[in-house]
Amino acid sequence: MKRPLDALNKARGKNVLVVLKNGKQITGTLQALDIHLNLWLDNAELQDDDKVIKLNTLLIRGDSIVYVSAE
Amino acid sequence: MKRPLDALNKARGKNVLVVLKNGKQITGTLQALDIHLNLWLDNAELQDDDKVIKLNTLLIRGDSIVYVSAE
Amino acid sequence: MKRPLDALNKARGKNVLVVLKNGKQITGTLQALDIHLNLWLDNAELQDDDKVIKLNTLLIRGDSIVYVSAE
Amino acid sequence: MKRPLDALNKARGKNVLVVLKNGKQITGTLQALDIHLNLWLDNAELQDDDKVIKLNTLLIRGDSIVYVSAE
Amino acid sequence: MKRPLDALNKARGKNVLVVLKNGKQITGTLQALDIHLNLWLDNAELQDDDKVIKLNTLLIRGDSIVYVSAE
Amino acid sequence: MKRPLDALNKARGKNVLVVLKNGKQITGTLQALDIHLNLWLDNAELQDDDKVIKLNTLLIRGDSIVYVSAE
Amino acid sequence: MKRPLDALNKARGKNVLVVLKNGKQITGTLQALDIHLNLWLDNAELQDDDKVIKLNTLLIRGDSIVYVSAE
Repeated sequence: MKRPLDALNKARGKNVLVVLKNGKQITGTLQALDIHLNLWLDNAELQDDDKVIKLNTLLIRGDSIVYVSAE
Repeated sequence: MKRPLDALNKARGKNVLVVLKNGKQITGTLQALDIHLNLWLDNAELQDDDKVIKLNTLLIRGDSIVYVSAE
Repeated sequence: MKRPLDALNKARGKNVLVVLKNGKQITGTLQALDIHLNLWLDNAELQDDDKVIKLNTLLIRGDSIVYVSAE
Repeated sequence: MKRPLDALNKARGKNVLVVLKNGKQITGTLQALDIHLNLWLDNAELQDDDKVIKLNTLLIRGDSIVYVSAE
Repeated sequence: MKRPLDALNKARGKNVLVVLKNGKQITGTLQALDIHLNLWLDNAELQDDDKVIKLNTLLIRGDSIVYVSAE
Repeated sequence: MKRPLDALNKARGKNVLVVLKNGKQITGTLQALDIHLNLWLDNAELQDDDKVIKLNTLLIRGDSIVYVSAE
Repeated sequence: MKRPLDALNKARGKNVLVVLKNGKQITGTLQALDIHLNLWLDNAELQDDDKVIKLNTLLIRGDSIVYVSAE
């Protein structure tokens, strides 16, 4: 039986889009996740209005996340 | 005795409507859920005002969800 | 000794009114509940200002709920 | 040694005033409570500005509550 | 070694000031507390702008509290 | 290996600055802390705009805290 | 298999950027972290609009954090 986190386990090493509860969006290469949905992204970039801010290696706290889209 | 999550277990493979605490609405094909109400949707689409944004494979964090409607 | 959830266990199969933390109100036939107050409603309807939106089979996440009234 | 919930256990069968995090106030006869402060009230009434809305049998989710006053 | 809740255990039977996350302030005689910081106050009074509202016996849910000051 | 709370354990008996989620700032002498970051301060003072409010013995609920700075 | 917190364990002794749920940003040298994402920073500085406020030794409560970027 499939579990929800499997959707992201398949996306390790690929680009994901993370939408945060504060309304910001982050993209990056998914390196790791855990059951709290804490995410480790590499090559991360934050979309902040018109600007793109490079964040490189990034740990996102799971409870800040609304959803994660695997491309 | 029926349990609340049974309402969604019956909806696996079917379309669901997810209403989020941030006011956004997402539709998609329910692939998997867990006891936290984390959801894996395929063919997901976000209704954002007049626009529809395709999100494809999507993991929604359970604590972002107000309710899920099975059609 | 009575427990709070007994108030809802008696209401299975009957109509309930659910008031959500986002201010919306939902009515429906209570099918199931659990200790998190996750609710499964059938024949659910959302009161959204003047409109009534039919949601049919619905899972409401317990932590979205302020109170549930059994009629 | 006294415990905080004892203040409410003594109030079973009596009227209580419940102040909610959404700013609303509810009165009713306390039937039951649990360690999450989930409350079952009978003869409940919601004070909504100038109006009084009868809610009758009511389950209030504990995490919606700021405080409960026993008269 | 001292623990934080000791600061309140010493205040049983004395007046305390409770500041709530909704910005309101309550004073009263501390009767009991538990590890969630649920508080039972007697002779409680709510400072609401210029008014003082008598609440008498009061159970405050711990997660509504910012801090408690022992006089 | 160092743990985060060690930063505060070293500050027992010294002045700390506590920044709260409600935007207020409190200073005081750190007497005790626990794993929830509940803090017991003595000689506490609240910075409220231009005013300083003396709170003396104070228990701050850990989940109200953004960060604590040891001077 | 990699875990998300490994991204930060590798950053001990290095500078990190912490973005808080209250919108503020803090930089500092990461001394320690735990599974709640509580962080101990040394040489911490808070970016507050145009000003930089020196906080030196700092404990950030994990649930205040949106993400942490290792430079």
